[in-house]
Amino acid sequence: MTTQELVNQIRKKKSFLCVGLDVDLNKIPKHLLHLDDPIFEFNKAIIDATHEYCVAYKPNTAFYEAYGLEGWKSLERTIQYLNANYPEMFTIADAKRGDIGNTSTMYAKAFLENLNFDSITVAPYMGKDSVEPFLAFTDKHTILLALTSNQGAFDFQTQVVSNEELYKKVISTSKNWENSENLMYVVGATKAEFLADIRKIIPNSFLLIPGVGAQGGSLEAVCKYGMADNIGMLINSSRGIIYASQGEDFAEIAGSKARELQKQMASYL
Amino acid sequence: MTTQELVNQIRKKKSFLCVGLDVDLNKIPKHLLHLDDPIFEFNKAIIDATHEYCVAYKPNTAFYEAYGLEGWKSLERTIQYLNANYPEMFTIADAKRGDIGNTSTMYAKAFLENLNFDSITVAPYMGKDSVEPFLAFTDKHTILLALTSNQGAFDFQTQVVSNEELYKKVISTSKNWENSENLMYVVGATKAEFLADIRKIIPNSFLLIPGVGAQGGSLEAVCKYGMADNIGMLINSSRGIIYASQGEDFAEIAGSKARELQKQMASYL
Repeated sequence: MTTQELVNQIRKKKSFLCVGLDVDLNKIPKHLLHLDDPIFEFNKAIIDATHEYCVAYKPNTAFYEAYGLEGWKSLERTIQYLNANYPEMFTIADAKRGDIGNTSTMYAKAFLENLNFDSITVAPYMGKDSVEPFLAFTDKHTILLALTSNQGAFDFQTQVVSNEELYKKVISTSKNWENSENLMYVVGATKAEFLADIRKIIPNSFLLIPGVGAQGGSLEAVCKYGMADNIGMLINSSRGIIYASQGEDFAEIAGSKARELQKQMASYL
Repeated sequence: MTTQELVNQIRKKKSFLCVGLDVDLNKIPKHLLHLDDPIFEFNKAIIDATHEYCVAYKPNTAFYEAYGLEGWKSLERTIQYLNANYPEMFTIADAKRGDIGNTSTMYAKAFLENLNFDSITVAPYMGKDSVEPFLAFTDKHTILLALTSNQGAFDFQTQVVSNEELYKKVISTSKNWENSENLMYVVGATKAEFLADIRKIIPNSFLLIPGVGAQGGSLEAVCKYGMADNIGMLINSSRGIIYASQGEDFAEIAGSKARELQKQMASYL
């Protein structure tokens, strides 16, 4: 999916919502647990109930790997279901990978080619030659960690490196990498005030913003400081939507939570 | 496995060699490809032929994920084979994971609990609360990326942050984290001269050192600058051992390559 197609979807649906599929068997409704593949059945129901109100889905790979082979199978089925039934959706493998060149190529193949995600999140610590193998998939998007939403972001990301914070250095350096036009960036919503600074470096790049809702960011502040001419934002919500109810009505309630967020988003578009 | 047990193994075998299991179906001997699980069969033969000369094995998870479900199955069988047949081996999941707290916990469960690896490599970019969930597995080891062996290491890791290079800041900061006594560090051998500086910060911590051989580091320099009283080093070799021959003699040749390295290592112990 091209960036322009994503922008078109956002304008059509009046939503820049991304639903995070962080599926934990301890948190999903009990009545699903007797099914063959509870994780996939949960995702399928959530997707069917929320797809009108969002433009992206983001399975977090850790939650699937934690269940070994079965989990990996659920992840495969989830992305296949999305690609077959909702091809207009932007899909994100939230995998936070990154390694030396030939290894990053293997990760890129796993997620962008075999599983056919539209994008993958990547960690910047190992630099240019660890990220460019993902960017080599030019019909896909690489979402680089810049400023994350956790407390640990202050350990290294906000430390000053040659007159700018490390996360800004990561962003500005990455602009020089091959195929950098396919980069997006993870920026935590708990630091909305930083978004204005980030927009000075990358006025139009898409930002994937976690941390609205459960992690405490404000939608208003994020839109004020982060929105670009092409909108340029995906706001992720995971727990606030998918675990809003643990009853048999979980999908319906997830749908109405997504709709609430969509309505708020529409007012900023 | 405790650090002391690892040191005992190193002294007993006179080897601090780690064999990297980066299995690429395009590079393994053709006669294995008709088997049910070529990746596992390759690993099994390599392990059986090299185990006398090394103390650790390090499957790189990217190479397994690239083959989807089948690859994940091969990874499971490989670690199960190691744990059942060579319980004295130190096993490393080279996964370079790292995410917000609850997600890192899921990754830690996947590799340290379910697959029962002794250790996992972790990226530091997201800071303390992204690494401590791994350290919470106190009978295991967390191997933090400090200074990697690729060119991209100079993009951010060697940049100066408040009077020290970022990789030193990562090391010194991590010493204050909960259960930090279970930390080890990845340090690339292509920069052996940096090892002396690193030893000033962590005189005894174990270092996992890739980049001897195919990536060009010198064993002599690494031992000169990096060796600690408790040895404190694992030197990884992947391609130089496992792909030394692509013929039917691949395991035998891998064994003799590992033995060559072990002999060189013995001279420094």
